[in-house]
Amino acid sequence: MQYFSGNKIRLGILGAGQLGKMLGQAASDWHLHTLAMDASEDSPAKGYVTEFLKGNLTDYRDVLNFGRKCDVLTIEIENVNVEALYQLQKEGVSIHPSPQSIEKIRDKGIQKEFFLNHKLPSSPFRLYDNKEALETALQTQKEKFPMVVKLRTGGYDGKGVFIMQERTQLSDLPNVPIVVEDLVAIEKEIAVIAAKNTRGEIVCYDPVEMVFDPQANLVDYLLSPARISSTAIQEAKVLAEKTIATFDINGLLAVEMFLTKEGNLLINEVAPRPHNSGHHSIDACVTSQFQQHLRGVLNLPLGDTQIICPSLMMNILGADNFTGPVRYHGIDHILGLKGTNVYLYGKSNTKPKRKMGHITILDHKIENLQATMQYIKEHFSVVA
Amino acid sequence: MQYFSGNKIRLGILGAGQLGKMLGQAASDWHLHTLAMDASEDSPAKGYVTEFLKGNLTDYRDVLNFGRKCDVLTIEIENVNVEALYQLQKEGVSIHPSPQSIEKIRDKGIQKEFFLNHKLPSSPFRLYDNKEALETALQTQKEKFPMVVKLRTGGYDGKGVFIMQERTQLSDLPNVPIVVEDLVAIEKEIAVIAAKNTRGEIVCYDPVEMVFDPQANLVDYLLSPARISSTAIQEAKVLAEKTIATFDINGLLAVEMFLTKEGNLLINEVAPRPHNSGHHSIDACVTSQFQQHLRGVLNLPLGDTQIICPSLMMNILGADNFTGPVRYHGIDHILGLKGTNVYLYGKSNTKPKRKMGHITILDHKIENLQATMQYIKEHFSVVA
Repeated sequence: MQYFSGNKIRLGILGAGQLGKMLGQAASDWHLHTLAMDASEDSPAKGYVTEFLKGNLTDYRDVLNFGRKCDVLTIEIENVNVEALYQLQKEGVSIHPSPQSIEKIRDKGIQKEFFLNHKLPSSPFRLYDNKEALETALQTQKEKFPMVVKLRTGGYDGKGVFIMQERTQLSDLPNVPIVVEDLVAIEKEIAVIAAKNTRGEIVCYDPVEMVFDPQANLVDYLLSPARISSTAIQEAKVLAEKTIATFDINGLLAVEMFLTKEGNLLINEVAPRPHNSGHHSIDACVTSQFQQHLRGVLNLPLGDTQIICPSLMMNILGADNFTGPVRYHGIDHILGLKGTNVYLYGKSNTKPKRKMGHITILDHKIENLQATMQYIKEHFSVVA
Repeated sequence: MQYFSGNKIRLGILGAGQLGKMLGQAASDWHLHTLAMDASEDSPAKGYVTEFLKGNLTDYRDVLNFGRKCDVLTIEIENVNVEALYQLQKEGVSIHPSPQSIEKIRDKGIQKEFFLNHKLPSSPFRLYDNKEALETALQTQKEKFPMVVKLRTGGYDGKGVFIMQERTQLSDLPNVPIVVEDLVAIEKEIAVIAAKNTRGEIVCYDPVEMVFDPQANLVDYLLSPARISSTAIQEAKVLAEKTIATFDINGLLAVEMFLTKEGNLLINEVAPRPHNSGHHSIDACVTSQFQQHLRGVLNLPLGDTQIICPSLMMNILGADNFTGPVRYHGIDHILGLKGTNVYLYGKSNTKPKRKMGHITILDHKIENLQATMQYIKEHFSVVA
């Protein structure tokens, strides 16, 4: 096959952050030819793809020129110039996820409408063009607190999502198009990563349980498998399979879900690429999410999603109050811990809550996983 | 620490074959700065280390110039210019394994004498300067068939080892210095990978069972854990720990052993670097042998050697009768197999029995591991 021998097919990745880096690393196991583009020479994926090119992901010309060097094109971030992708599609470049599906997902308003139109369960919502429109709705009691407000575009890593309990919090909100969702009574937040290829094969990983840091509104850690009933596990996987099939996405679709207090599953949001909730799969599943994404976009047979060992994944975040050239304080104390694998993304500079790496802990007992995590939190920090 | 932030320490690897590639991949998880040197631009590690330099591993000047670019230097093959390493050591480069220990190991005659002098159990042996000297010993009945004859230097991947049953086989033997060993009645061949750092920490992986292809005299597949008694497992680990401590090697020492019919352990031979018998550790143990080698040579805390899942590792070898640009025939049939991870080294050309990659199969049942291997052998081959 032309991926593995001779004049190899060239796989382009739009974006060269940590997800791009880990895609490049996964591609290296098969010696694939990869290219990545991003705005900064200091990108994590540089050096871990066959070719790195500097360019602006939202610039039509830059994306077009990059895509023309590729046979197959994928993304590690949704915020890319979609018009260029449509042009590249016309020119015969194979693009996964398709520009059509990227457009359905990267605007959270369109994403919610898609769920509604295709009977994919999701919380009730309303769209507003700007903050004033929301304020009018509040005055006329069409909306009331508490509510979840999300910016329709540009949100990332928990940014752009606001849980609003009272009117004073509105001042945090920029004056842009928003989605307002009912605040649902949640038992657990889980995520299921689904994968599809052009042959129509679909597989799912088991749900992971996302435990959030309430202050940062970022995933604090995740547990695999999720501590939910086997019925809920099966229902979540069926819902993720239905979702990727409905969007008709090749490669990965990460489906974040709420398990409500009443035991129902609601889709929170989706991402058509490798996802923070799948990092454990590098160590804890047969096939990593990154290799699975490659399989999907290259139309190769999908890999075994089976869990080999229960795991906990925690992000390595820049400590508050530190900005500048990074130092990994105490790393010597944690590198030798039982069951522990440390990943660093190579970012030169830290800032508060920046994702600098992640740690996977493997153990058959959940108490041990959490105890190791606690030890790491007490002995290791990312400072400047 | 200077490995992870700021002006990073530069780690050089002499050799850029598949072991160098996998060392580079392991280093990428920590974003380490790596350099590798080898004679051909078409080396597997090129593209998977930070810098690749072309040079002859046995040339004094090439090794010296390469080493002077490095803060820490290691090897993926023993056949390197040791005189240059001694000079680099004087100049302050940190070299692991040390040139002293490389000299003790790469000549199998000196290696056997080291075992004998340090009471490390090994089969009885005699050294001969050339084939004529062996023939004289046979005529005077100081030697008799069957016997194991090994070239003292330059053997690799099963080449240079001859099990001789009768006089006619002597014609295969080049006229160079040799070791003659008694042919031991073997129950199993096993390998234990030990690791040490400069702090004096020592850890061992569990023994793997090496199942040989009798024709190629190459490892056909290996099973982890080895199907031997828990007593034998413990004894093998103690022996490997003693061996690495006695050689005083930092990084890895792979210790190949015979478990004799009488239940004794004898060291067959050792290699001070990542080893074919440890490839399963990438998928099946917490810490891969490649990351463990980095930990050892960089004097970092050693990682957890624990087995996460039983596994079978098989080499992907070039099929007989095919030489030339490689094609992976049937790869589409095996990529989706349960529990299976395929690794390709990216060599452009195949030749009979050349190591082109490896496959790790994970399963809790040994019968399933062997059944998957059988399926792979029937559906997949490396042709030209």
